[in-house]
Amino acid sequence: MFQIASYETYQDGQIIIEEGSYGDWIYQIDEGTIEISKMIDGKKVVIDILQEGEILGELAYITKLPRTATATAVGRTVVGIIDRNFFDHEFNKIPADFQKIFKAVALRLKRTTETIAKAKVS
Amino acid sequence: MFQIASYETYQDGQIIIEEGSYGDWIYQIDEGTIEISKMIDGKKVVIDILQEGEILGELAYITKLPRTATATAVGRTVVGIIDRNFFDHEFNKIPADFQKIFKAVALRLKRTTETIAKAKVS
Repeated sequence: MFQIASYETYQDGQIIIEEGSYGDWIYQIDEGTIEISKMIDGKKVVIDILQEGEILGELAYITKLPRTATATAVGRTVVGIIDRNFFDHEFNKIPADFQKIFKAVALRLKRTTETIAKAKVS
Repeated sequence: MFQIASYETYQDGQIIIEEGSYGDWIYQIDEGTIEISKMIDGKKVVIDILQEGEILGELAYITKLPRTATATAVGRTVVGIIDRNFFDHEFNKIPADFQKIFKAVALRLKRTTETIAKAKVS
């Protein structure tokens, strides 16, 4: 399992990650549920709901781009912040070709998430 | 770079991967363009267009689920089939935690792709 550097607790409706911001911490949901959403034309569009054990924030880590979407606590939620030194160390062990595929899949997910948000509004 | 086991040439409109079929070969586009689409309520919905150098087919490899979408050649297209023994060997070198994240991102892309296709039709 990933090493967790620290835990953070959020109350219902609190924002954990904000769309468009810079930052590439990766989180794992320890307790609770997180809503993933995007603002399109001033309207919030829910993209996905993540549950305990799921990872979030990995797209910004992999792509080095701003946060794709906003993550909001649904009810009381505890997230573990994955230890960065350990993560970097492990990530660097991945063969370069796979880092490339990983990045391609992440970029495709980012692009698809953007398209879906627009499609849901129009 | 990935080792390519063999090359296949497709003419405009020919199907390379069919949605719902089993198979987990991974392809890299050597020449040409590939359209990614899904059938929803009997209607074809274009999800993405992939270009030279891009990888396709990795979702089925990672998730071990049927093909998410159909890949069709746009004009004459040459794809390289990635050597499977080499790929498996390299994939198994990836730390287990990353294989898990990789799988989570792939499943999220699969889910998002399905939602987008439905949203485009409705």
